[in-house]
Amino acid sequence: MRRTVIVGGVAAGMSTATRLRRNDENMEIVVLERGPYVSFANCGLPYHLGGTIAERDELLLHTPESLAERFDIDVRASHEVVSIDRGARTITVVDRSADTTGTLSYDALVLATGASAVVPPIPGIERAHTLRDVPDLDSVMADLERDPRSAVVLGGGFVGLEAAENLAGRGLDVTIVEAADQILAPLDAEMAAVVARHLEVNGVRVRTGLRAVAIGEDSVRLDDDTAVPAALVLASTGVRPESGLARDAGLDLGLGGGVLVDAQRRTSDPRIFAVGDVAVESSAVTGQDTLVPLANIANRHGRMVADVICGRTAGALPSLGTAIVGLFGLAAAVVGVNERTLRQQGRAIHVIHTHPSDHAGYYPGAEMMKLKLVVDAETGLILGAQGVGRSGVDKRIDVIATAMRAGLSAADLADLELAYAPQFGSAKDPVNMLGMIADNLAAGTARVTQWHEVDAAVAAGATVLDVRTPEEVAAGAIAGAVNIPLDELRKRLDEVPDGPVIATCRVGMRGYLATRILTQEGRDATNLDGGMLTWEDAGLPLA
Amino acid sequence: MRRTVIVGGVAAGMSTATRLRRNDENMEIVVLERGPYVSFANCGLPYHLGGTIAERDELLLHTPESLAERFDIDVRASHEVVSIDRGARTITVVDRSADTTGTLSYDALVLATGASAVVPPIPGIERAHTLRDVPDLDSVMADLERDPRSAVVLGGGFVGLEAAENLAGRGLDVTIVEAADQILAPLDAEMAAVVARHLEVNGVRVRTGLRAVAIGEDSVRLDDDTAVPAALVLASTGVRPESGLARDAGLDLGLGGGVLVDAQRRTSDPRIFAVGDVAVESSAVTGQDTLVPLANIANRHGRMVADVICGRTAGALPSLGTAIVGLFGLAAAVVGVNERTLRQQGRAIHVIHTHPSDHAGYYPGAEMMKLKLVVDAETGLILGAQGVGRSGVDKRIDVIATAMRAGLSAADLADLELAYAPQFGSAKDPVNMLGMIADNLAAGTARVTQWHEVDAAVAAGATVLDVRTPEEVAAGAIAGAVNIPLDELRKRLDEVPDGPVIATCRVGMRGYLATRILTQEGRDATNLDGGMLTWEDAGLPLA
Repeated sequence: MRRTVIVGGVAAGMSTATRLRRNDENMEIVVLERGPYVSFANCGLPYHLGGTIAERDELLLHTPESLAERFDIDVRASHEVVSIDRGARTITVVDRSADTTGTLSYDALVLATGASAVVPPIPGIERAHTLRDVPDLDSVMADLERDPRSAVVLGGGFVGLEAAENLAGRGLDVTIVEAADQILAPLDAEMAAVVARHLEVNGVRVRTGLRAVAIGEDSVRLDDDTAVPAALVLASTGVRPESGLARDAGLDLGLGGGVLVDAQRRTSDPRIFAVGDVAVESSAVTGQDTLVPLANIANRHGRMVADVICGRTAGALPSLGTAIVGLFGLAAAVVGVNERTLRQQGRAIHVIHTHPSDHAGYYPGAEMMKLKLVVDAETGLILGAQGVGRSGVDKRIDVIATAMRAGLSAADLADLELAYAPQFGSAKDPVNMLGMIADNLAAGTARVTQWHEVDAAVAAGATVLDVRTPEEVAAGAIAGAVNIPLDELRKRLDEVPDGPVIATCRVGMRGYLATRILTQEGRDATNLDGGMLTWEDAGLPLA
Repeated sequence: MRRTVIVGGVAAGMSTATRLRRNDENMEIVVLERGPYVSFANCGLPYHLGGTIAERDELLLHTPESLAERFDIDVRASHEVVSIDRGARTITVVDRSADTTGTLSYDALVLATGASAVVPPIPGIERAHTLRDVPDLDSVMADLERDPRSAVVLGGGFVGLEAAENLAGRGLDVTIVEAADQILAPLDAEMAAVVARHLEVNGVRVRTGLRAVAIGEDSVRLDDDTAVPAALVLASTGVRPESGLARDAGLDLGLGGGVLVDAQRRTSDPRIFAVGDVAVESSAVTGQDTLVPLANIANRHGRMVADVICGRTAGALPSLGTAIVGLFGLAAAVVGVNERTLRQQGRAIHVIHTHPSDHAGYYPGAEMMKLKLVVDAETGLILGAQGVGRSGVDKRIDVIATAMRAGLSAADLADLELAYAPQFGSAKDPVNMLGMIADNLAAGTARVTQWHEVDAAVAAGATVLDVRTPEEVAAGAIAGAVNIPLDELRKRLDEVPDGPVIATCRVGMRGYLATRILTQEGRDATNLDGGMLTWEDAGLPLA
């Protein structure tokens, strides 16, 4: 009888184990989990902090006993694998509860050890909690028994923001401290800023571009020499692959210490696989190595590794890194690569910002969302998308992620047939609209200026032409902009200043129409992409 | 200067007109609309009946004046085109308000005349309203001033059900009468039945398999000789392409009287285009001609026709027919072709029913939905999908529609990277799960029996093996089923009766696990697809 040993009993590990059993009733399957719990819902941990998930037990999806009963799997919690003897094909295991050490042989070994928290090496950091597993959660919950009134969350990533929301929901005075210039690094600055303002509106302070330098008894000192009240501190400053076991066994490591694997998730030892957060992924957009510590990839690849072990031909696809976070009723989602990264890489791209409604405007309750699409200017392929809004963001990002997976072009989004009734979308869905704009950009019938390009263009002689109504303009406009409402433009063409023109309006629709009129008059006209709303999202000034 | 004349000023026509202007500032664009309103929101009409859309003006998106001002388009409402002289390239137009007749020449002519209601030729039908445009709506609203207490809606299609919901929302006692054996013909019976029960729970009576034979003063008589109270009657029994003008001009017509067009929506006269509900579409699934009276297709194809007229190469793709309806908080959505139709055509298909949660079960508020996927057994391609549920159905159907458009296989759904946080989905999203099941079916590691195949299989000697707990079984099971709970199956294999086994459980998951155990023991085992929930959805009996 063959024996597969799986190191790590959460998402990737348990997906591998249960699929192995479905594939093969006769295989011996042993899962060794260092921690006291297996198969828990890591993505739910922040939501117990604030009581949204009221019962801790809700997070414990399986026990070793339930897994043995249903899947005939030998699951051992509190068992830490401390070394691998690749030649002998054995591992050394320490049973932390019995305090005994033993060895176990394997035919196939699966490393699903995940990732561990990285905390900044600053004075007082030992007081900071992390939030990676159930003992971490228990530790924060115990600390909350003291009834702390303030908290600092170090790190403005997905989990940090979720924790901040939930701590604020308990009534704590919460500050997020993020060393980068923005929260939510996978998003571009003008999209992340919308989320940051939403957090502030909901009482969570967001301090970016600042580092914690010391953690005191009830405050955190930052590198601008201010102190932030912090009866409780949570460090959520990133993770690194938990690859020490692989490293010590001489397996090849790559980016950030992640285990290098082939498409089948085989390491440099063909009897050893690595899956989930511990393994290095390949980016579907750039082709470069990347780390994607996300549950969906862990689960899918766990299943695939089980198939490979059982002799099936399979291979993991490069990763898109689709992710979402919900904060005080606002969703922020991302797929692929953002504008910032692609511009740093010198890629020729088209960028599209829109501010559509989640459903038909004439039906009650329509909510505006913000979408961004990044397109390869040469191939027309979709390189990334971002969305922020109260409703319907997850749907649009999922549709775009599906299009990206399938290799559709951005313009192909125009022709998607999406389910329309006025409660659910629009006859031209926001995704269709992105495709139509991409089609216009590819055809050259639309040309845009991005919010971060306006200053240079104006310095080089361009005029901003604001085609909104005077009433709209009075509420705030770009300094120096000339106002001619769109509906008067055809009659007032002689008033448009000479030289290049950057048309703008509220969301970019009227500005686009203005560029169509101007371009056909022989003028050099571009449209301010996303209009004044994107301008304001980016925090740029109004005159 | 070239002149394009567009007949019909709603979705397809106005999309053509506005895109034409964006393409060409110098083209003369004339839109002739028979009715008094242009560019109104037809999909919103039912929602004014119940006051969900409180203001009638919300439905009027543009006026001829606003379109002239913004787009320099000559829009003439109450202008009916009565004939086309293709040789002279002129049309004859009657101005219904001035009661004058004139002719107008065209370089290109676009027929966007839509579809009109088909009403059954029964006594009293003249009292029945239809609901296709604003005058229809005004007529119903005026009738509602009488404060009728009951209504019959003839026809259980999308618009009929929406109207029924809204009339019930006003407090009327509403009965839907549908001649077919089920409402919502694009869905399969067991999916439509879920919607019918939801309507009944919300106080709308659903009578299927019955025809109205006469409409009396305050009731409708059906062909089972019962009478249904009906102070108000709405006929929503289908539409037919409004192609009289095309027919009289000698243009080629096809299915249901729709105008035959090529991929560019050119009719048999290359100067005349037809777009929207009046034109015959091609099914992306079957390749057969089809009629798809949906707003998204009308809008997208309108834009495309404008590009073709302006010399751009473009072509419409075959249609998937993606559609959705929301009823008392429940959504029902469909894409592609259903099982019933494909079985009638003799296609070899795999069918998958699931009952997943819209988001992670451990996060509060998870709602069960019902999904169905129909897969080509030979190619593995997705042929259709259906979903019914309170939340997240639109997203899953849109993702599947995108996958279908891109030619992904059903198994490819397993590898989609969809945005996951516990409020929005699951680490293995319901769409991923459909793909994993499709993968298992394609690999032969899962075999299923459909709800409508059980009786024949049992008659041929199969045993139903219910692997739920005794407590679950006690609440109702399939007559004659043997009960062995899944977690005891490995130890009680000798109790499984000889011969073929159909395993079942609540949703199909434990049944699948049972088939894995049994198959590897050499038994002939299939899983009841969708489990007892699909069995009950189909209205089959419990013992």
